[in-house]
Amino acid sequence: MSSTSPLLVPFPEMPEIAGVTKRVAKARYKEWDRCDLTYVELDAGTAVAGVTTRNVCCSSEVELCRENLKGGKARALVVNAGNSNAFTGYRGREAVEAITKQVAQHLGCNESEIFVSSTGVIGVPLPKDKAEAGLRAAFEAPTCSWKDIADTIGTTDTFAKGAKASAMIGDRRVEIVGVIKGSGMIAPDMATMLGYIFTDAAVEPAFLQQMLSNANLATFSCITVDSDTSTSDTVLAFATGKAGNQMLASIDDAGADAFASALHDVCRQLAHLVVRDGEGAQKFVEINIEGAVSDDSARRIGLAVANSPLVKTAIAGEDANWGRVVMAVGKAGEPADRDRLSISFGSTQVAKNGLPVDGYDEAPVAAHLKGQEITIGVDIGLGSGRATVWTCDLTHGYISINADYRS
Amino acid sequence: MSSTSPLLVPFPEMPEIAGVTKRVAKARYKEWDRCDLTYVELDAGTAVAGVTTRNVCCSSEVELCRENLKGGKARALVVNAGNSNAFTGYRGREAVEAITKQVAQHLGCNESEIFVSSTGVIGVPLPKDKAEAGLRAAFEAPTCSWKDIADTIGTTDTFAKGAKASAMIGDRRVEIVGVIKGSGMIAPDMATMLGYIFTDAAVEPAFLQQMLSNANLATFSCITVDSDTSTSDTVLAFATGKAGNQMLASIDDAGADAFASALHDVCRQLAHLVVRDGEGAQKFVEINIEGAVSDDSARRIGLAVANSPLVKTAIAGEDANWGRVVMAVGKAGEPADRDRLSISFGSTQVAKNGLPVDGYDEAPVAAHLKGQEITIGVDIGLGSGRATVWTCDLTHGYISINADYRS
Repeated sequence: MSSTSPLLVPFPEMPEIAGVTKRVAKARYKEWDRCDLTYVELDAGTAVAGVTTRNVCCSSEVELCRENLKGGKARALVVNAGNSNAFTGYRGREAVEAITKQVAQHLGCNESEIFVSSTGVIGVPLPKDKAEAGLRAAFEAPTCSWKDIADTIGTTDTFAKGAKASAMIGDRRVEIVGVIKGSGMIAPDMATMLGYIFTDAAVEPAFLQQMLSNANLATFSCITVDSDTSTSDTVLAFATGKAGNQMLASIDDAGADAFASALHDVCRQLAHLVVRDGEGAQKFVEINIEGAVSDDSARRIGLAVANSPLVKTAIAGEDANWGRVVMAVGKAGEPADRDRLSISFGSTQVAKNGLPVDGYDEAPVAAHLKGQEITIGVDIGLGSGRATVWTCDLTHGYISINADYRS
Repeated sequence: MSSTSPLLVPFPEMPEIAGVTKRVAKARYKEWDRCDLTYVELDAGTAVAGVTTRNVCCSSEVELCRENLKGGKARALVVNAGNSNAFTGYRGREAVEAITKQVAQHLGCNESEIFVSSTGVIGVPLPKDKAEAGLRAAFEAPTCSWKDIADTIGTTDTFAKGAKASAMIGDRRVEIVGVIKGSGMIAPDMATMLGYIFTDAAVEPAFLQQMLSNANLATFSCITVDSDTSTSDTVLAFATGKAGNQMLASIDDAGADAFASALHDVCRQLAHLVVRDGEGAQKFVEINIEGAVSDDSARRIGLAVANSPLVKTAIAGEDANWGRVVMAVGKAGEPADRDRLSISFGSTQVAKNGLPVDGYDEAPVAAHLKGQEITIGVDIGLGSGRATVWTCDLTHGYISINADYRS
């Protein structure tokens, strides 16, 4: 296993969420002696929303999640770690359906209210007997902490990841907490970002979905470690409604703004944690694009810069190679004009209107690049579209984790 | 500088092309004592065609090439190595225009018949005085070999790259030769693929362009080292017409098929050479996609696989990690169905119709992956679209070349 990321953030103190009961158990999906099955019960009336991978070769779990999200109601979440159940055909589907059925019978609810994720080795159908025994153990297990949940959903993560925020809806304070796994991977495991957000707020499913989708666009969809998209990526948000606030159904409702903002905050924190555990990451990189023809265009330009191996290796080498940023902007396929482009590292402008800045002093840039938190600014100079994306550098550690290994 | 690629191909014996006069000189664009200016004179009547980078932040050279290609006629090619003149605004443009003017005056031809490329450091305007003196030296220099040309256009290449083919047009044998530079890079130099093809065949410019564009789509556009697109990429084809064949103006002309096929062959060879000199490359990888909904879709899927850092590191690690291939197919954004997908390494099928092959024997796959020439086959199972793309593995060498360095 890899050593802990130097960009680690300690797991925060996180409040309990009324209506959420958490347990973990050992299904022993792999030859290990750790909890690898997460079982979270949700009180009746819990709303759910979700975003899933756009990889067209997604797992059965993702397919079932998408179907069940249509109902907008959830009673339980099951997460299997150690086996992603991806690319396992009808046998994989049967395993997910068996889990769903067992939990629905246990709770006396509809199968459409059960959400299942799996992460780990691909191409091996999830063993139904292990899942069944693991679930039985989980039903009987004592409740556990958020840290236990974060540890149990993880596979190759080098640290447990959690985030929290709160908001006032009228006179009620509501809590939002989230856990996420992702970005450490050791072949034959696949990269999987699995994130779960829980709140005691009362929110209509459709509005929860709208807020989560919006937040996703500016957070989980704005991070990249290596441009590869998992077959299992899933983020689900559960709202138990136990806080007793006036039900939120639209952004015009009192407190909806504050809640949306807090949800966005949790998503952003979780997204950053995934980047901070990026394989081999030594530096956390924020890329701010402004002046694009639209926000969407800015995001695509930002991701082109963030995914460029040449930009990422330059950062690893602490080299202020702004030419590689120009190259990456140009290859994004979005409107850009070489002679209007301005680029900065940290707070120092290095190029303006398509030319190196006169009297450019490299010292402050070199100092900035020696740090762990790097900022690159790009002004496209064409419009008012803007976006921020986050990535990590590309180091020998990435190659070691992914190549110096045989399955 | 990097050591020679283990995938090197020796420079071939290449015939002289009637109507092409080659010279090199020392412009000393960098602190080095090597030829870095290439000057190729083309007899009057030479047709030209070209394909250039799609990077929107392209260099002034590329802009001027595009303008001049409209005329379809060429009298000279100038290539500067050591300074790409990219991102240098109006000063860069002035430098190219000065070169163009000097050569046009020397030859007594139109400026639109002069083609200039530059490769190397970005952000520094090409020094006009060095270019002018270098050109004067080149005008007086003795003629040189194709190997000298290949060496002179190179910057961080670890070996000289050339290819040839011939074809019969009626009773006339025509020769096609090509040289190319690209894919080794050391910051702050940028990746640049610059390729030049010369033939003594008589070909109408529009038809030459059509054949080159077609060949490009299946060769230069089907290779990738790191997914990054240079601001300077250019491939030009010059046809002097000295072979005395009946002018080729359409694919229906006698011999046009044979010529198109030979041109395609040279393009494919040159494209492979660039991959074989990919930074840190230890293995040459061919990816064959079939069963896609269209050829174009197959090419996009192939490039998604070829650009996936996870696939490329798995190959570096000689790991038959077909799950990463599934992931890469799925993220391409093209039609695919997990349960119809079949994958092979070398001649061994590892997954069929979305499931691991029963009784899969890893031994022949492991043996294949230990070699230098790797083949991955993917059958999408949806249609008859097919494409072949080529790449190299992603190794510690890539990181060392691009990160273990300060500008």
